[in-house]
Amino acid sequence: MNDDLFDTGLQIRKEVLGAEFVEKSLAAADDFNMPMQKLTTEYCWGAVWGREGLPRATRSMLNLAMLSILNRPHELKMHLKGALNNGVTKEEIREVLMQVAIYGGIPAGVDAFRVAKETFVELAQAKQ
Amino acid sequence: MNDDLFDTGLQIRKEVLGAEFVEKSLAAADDFNMPMQKLTTEYCWGAVWGREGLPRATRSMLNLAMLSILNRPHELKMHLKGALNNGVTKEEIREVLMQVAIYGGIPAGVDAFRVAKETFVELAQAKQ
Amino acid sequence: MNDDLFDTGLQIRKEVLGAEFVEKSLAAADDFNMPMQKLTTEYCWGAVWGREGLPRATRSMLNLAMLSILNRPHELKMHLKGALNNGVTKEEIREVLMQVAIYGGIPAGVDAFRVAKETFVELAQAKQ
Amino acid sequence: MNDDLFDTGLQIRKEVLGAEFVEKSLAAADDFNMPMQKLTTEYCWGAVWGREGLPRATRSMLNLAMLSILNRPHELKMHLKGALNNGVTKEEIREVLMQVAIYGGIPAGVDAFRVAKETFVELAQAKQ
Amino acid sequence: MNDDLFDTGLQIRKEVLGAEFVEKSLAAADDFNMPMQKLTTEYCWGAVWGREGLPRATRSMLNLAMLSILNRPHELKMHLKGALNNGVTKEEIREVLMQVAIYGGIPAGVDAFRVAKETFVELAQAKQ
Amino acid sequence: MNDDLFDTGLQIRKEVLGAEFVEKSLAAADDFNMPMQKLTTEYCWGAVWGREGLPRATRSMLNLAMLSILNRPHELKMHLKGALNNGVTKEEIREVLMQVAIYGGIPAGVDAFRVAKETFVELAQAKQ
Repeated sequence: MNDDLFDTGLQIRKEVLGAEFVEKSLAAADDFNMPMQKLTTEYCWGAVWGREGLPRATRSMLNLAMLSILNRPHELKMHLKGALNNGVTKEEIREVLMQVAIYGGIPAGVDAFRVAKETFVELAQAKQ
Repeated sequence: MNDDLFDTGLQIRKEVLGAEFVEKSLAAADDFNMPMQKLTTEYCWGAVWGREGLPRATRSMLNLAMLSILNRPHELKMHLKGALNNGVTKEEIREVLMQVAIYGGIPAGVDAFRVAKETFVELAQAKQ
Repeated sequence: MNDDLFDTGLQIRKEVLGAEFVEKSLAAADDFNMPMQKLTTEYCWGAVWGREGLPRATRSMLNLAMLSILNRPHELKMHLKGALNNGVTKEEIREVLMQVAIYGGIPAGVDAFRVAKETFVELAQAKQ
Repeated sequence: MNDDLFDTGLQIRKEVLGAEFVEKSLAAADDFNMPMQKLTTEYCWGAVWGREGLPRATRSMLNLAMLSILNRPHELKMHLKGALNNGVTKEEIREVLMQVAIYGGIPAGVDAFRVAKETFVELAQAKQ
Repeated sequence: MNDDLFDTGLQIRKEVLGAEFVEKSLAAADDFNMPMQKLTTEYCWGAVWGREGLPRATRSMLNLAMLSILNRPHELKMHLKGALNNGVTKEEIREVLMQVAIYGGIPAGVDAFRVAKETFVELAQAKQ
Repeated sequence: MNDDLFDTGLQIRKEVLGAEFVEKSLAAADDFNMPMQKLTTEYCWGAVWGREGLPRATRSMLNLAMLSILNRPHELKMHLKGALNNGVTKEEIREVLMQVAIYGGIPAGVDAFRVAKETFVELAQAKQ
């Protein structure tokens, strides 16, 4: 394991997904899934999100497109929140998902729009 | 059919993929695939690429990510050229494809990098 | 936007999926997802379902196969209802899903049969 | 192994894909892939294609849609020939592939149209 | 139908997934889905799981990897239980799922780990 | 970057895929794809293949199944060679690919068997 990369990754992961959520995930990890938590933090958040060369908002938009096509609604919801944290606007999210509908097919687009609506409702309720 | 949308789409498609390539595709179309040419030009290029709300360079990067994950190397090659036409740099392409490797898996990343290398060689040869 | 194609699409979409359901979807649409509602109605229902050349029952069966393989249970449920509206019998649905199991793999078939059973139960309850 | 099912399957497989092609595949099979040849002939062609309940032309159209989305061009080419053998017209193939483009995404449609064009050229050359 | 293969398949299916679960599935089957129950038992459990050449624990691990990538959480849960029945340890399951995360992408891995955790909780509760 | 993990990964990668092939890949890497070479070597080969808990032959079999389903023939070919290097027999490879045919669908199985046959021919020719 690479401690520096883990620390960088943890920092970015908290900034994008929210510190509370990330700390809870790590606190809930046990022997079974801790190696996966570490791999994700170090490799996904440290080694790639930690690279220069693309603004975080762009990385977020890429993720929304990829997760919609990969058909992973849990991760999509998390990264919709991350995208808003990274300054992506609702209008930009809409544009990304419409492009998904054309390239990934209408059902991928419909599902992604539904997840986005649910996410916006959750966020509005959380603010109250 | 919507003539305005088709014309808008055709214009954008030529700007992104190159007028010569697009004209050749349309000229080669026959009764069998002309409806597909029209659908693509009108909806994909007119109704989505023609929307405001995202810069073309961002739309190109989204496409590189989606086509890599959808495993469509022919289309990926075409849109790698389109991305360069839209001002995406090689360094940005690299960042997109590394993000693909993380979220879509290492084999998706490896294949996308190979297609990108082939595309860059083709473009270098075409310039000579 | 192409108003004629939208109107054709809206008409077909209502005939296949049920007028009440479609009107509710459109009424619930806001700035965020209205462009997607329009794209789907015009492009999916107008430009493709509106074409001649295949009976609606055949288009429905194609959709059941594609949605099972694309792993989109929400859309599959909707189109199972649409298939019955279009005159596809339960026996034909079974045949389509068994072919899915062979070409898309047993898990795709098992999931599709489960969604079909749930849909039939919902429809039976709605009739009571 | 179920000999009756194998025989039924072999008969149908030859009728759909052509006797010569199927005999060559079986003759070329060795210890390594013979079990796969048997599994395919018995289950895919015997247990599913051998079922009543759907005309062969419909089964062919379902396959074209599924194989396009599954991104399997070799199998798609074989089943395009099979579809023509089963009486599916070129116009119907076009309709199936346009529906693929909507539900599976434009790149799936573009690739399927390209494979179809190549197949038609091959068939025209074989007739000369 | 091949009765011997069905019987072999049924036996193995019960040993791997639990007799009670399998008997319930068969008892609940009706005209609509009985052919799918038979196909699965005969073809999946008889013709493939019934083959020699790989230990059941290895077949289970292959299934965990494939079902994670195919994005089929219902089947994954069932085969996680099957894997434990076949003597695969939790540590080995973890290794399989980490390999999924690298080759199928981080979101496939994250989803698979979540399904595994849910499954372990269900099993612990069932034992109480 | 984590130098230890890279060194471990490089060592394993060479042992599995062949030193000559890996050295050529690294020697051919330029600014564009070197970060991908490093990511793959460090995370895929170091952080996952370098873990204890599964024999290399099992990891190879998992990869054959995953790459067949992910539809990545280039990587599949490389890992077929790797599997043989790791002591997986041809008979075991056949069993893995038959299981792919059931769970991933017949076309995934057919394509994987074809790639395997091509790989065996290449290896036989290379030995001459």
